[in-house]
Amino acid sequence: MDKGRLIVFSGPSGVGKDTILKKLIESDDTVKLSISATTRPKREYEEEGKDYYFLSEDEFLKKVSENKMLEYAKYCSNYYGTPIEPIERWTNEGVDVILEIEVEGGQKVISQQKGVLSIFVMPPSFAVLKRRLEERKTDSEDIVLGRLNRAKEEISTAYKYDYIVVNDDIDNCVDDIKAIIKADKLKYKNMKNFIDGVMAND
Amino acid sequence: MDKGRLIVFSGPSGVGKDTILKKLIESDDTVKLSISATTRPKREYEEEGKDYYFLSEDEFLKKVSENKMLEYAKYCSNYYGTPIEPIERWTNEGVDVILEIEVEGGQKVISQQKGVLSIFVMPPSFAVLKRRLEERKTDSEDIVLGRLNRAKEEISTAYKYDYIVVNDDIDNCVDDIKAIIKADKLKYKNMKNFIDGVMAND
Repeated sequence: MDKGRLIVFSGPSGVGKDTILKKLIESDDTVKLSISATTRPKREYEEEGKDYYFLSEDEFLKKVSENKMLEYAKYCSNYYGTPIEPIERWTNEGVDVILEIEVEGGQKVISQQKGVLSIFVMPPSFAVLKRRLEERKTDSEDIVLGRLNRAKEEISTAYKYDYIVVNDDIDNCVDDIKAIIKADKLKYKNMKNFIDGVMAND
Repeated sequence: MDKGRLIVFSGPSGVGKDTILKKLIESDDTVKLSISATTRPKREYEEEGKDYYFLSEDEFLKKVSENKMLEYAKYCSNYYGTPIEPIERWTNEGVDVILEIEVEGGQKVISQQKGVLSIFVMPPSFAVLKRRLEERKTDSEDIVLGRLNRAKEEISTAYKYDYIVVNDDIDNCVDDIKAIIKADKLKYKNMKNFIDGVMAND
């Protein structure tokens, strides 16, 4: 069986990443989402190994020192990171693993890992992104403006990604991602083993 | 509107290229087939500008000298070639143009033209290819063997193509080609204009 691939998935806050990925994994069981590890306390509604892997700071830093984290960062005195082991287990089973990650972490992974497929989600326009952020209602006007400025910074790094999808229509966007994953498997380098097999049995 | 792209499409005799392309253009009106020019006499059932552009040898060679042929070759004292003008007209209209071509011509086009997308069709195995060639009945055993040897030569050049599709199931194969064309449009370099447009209207 062919190995699955690691897919780095980024895009600005409010662009709809969670909704896109939810739809994608619901409709395609050869794709799974990477689960982050964190040292922050587990909330009541959260599930170990589903929402996060919850680790003590010692456990987390041990994994870091043993190179068992693909990337990690500290926010608000808690560590967050991407454990390598589950990704390797799934990709060895032929499953594609999507890592939803902000652009800095994403770029670390893209530059350090071989054969990563990277996808950046764009809003159709800033006007749409602003409306989506405002519709959340939970955020003040200042926070919305901050997120829009942050979105500009993030979009300015989109050139580091292999593919750009636009979340205009959610179903089209999911179809685009499926096409990207399908096409990637058909690249010559990923079909070389198949060709060699045919040639060996002439 | 984004320009269409030129798609070079090759694969061994008997692999089912014509059937695949017929299904593809029937189900997708943003894709057209490139029409070759030839100096061989028009057969009764053939249509000018549909099956071929039928040219005199003088007309053909004039186009060659004026660099109006993407590639050309001579078989059995007749010239065959790919006129550039219709390809440019269609790609300027945003249509993707597929050029079905043997591997030598295909490689010329791939190496000379910028931004060509290239796809090579594989049989699932030599056994299947042999059966398909034998089923034609019109060819003698010698000709079938010759075509199989030629197939090996052609497949040995598949590494020059961007993508490999397998004609195991015709519908899957057409879906694979559609995914490749869709994904290609989502590559960063092809989405750069869109991103620039969003950033310019913040």
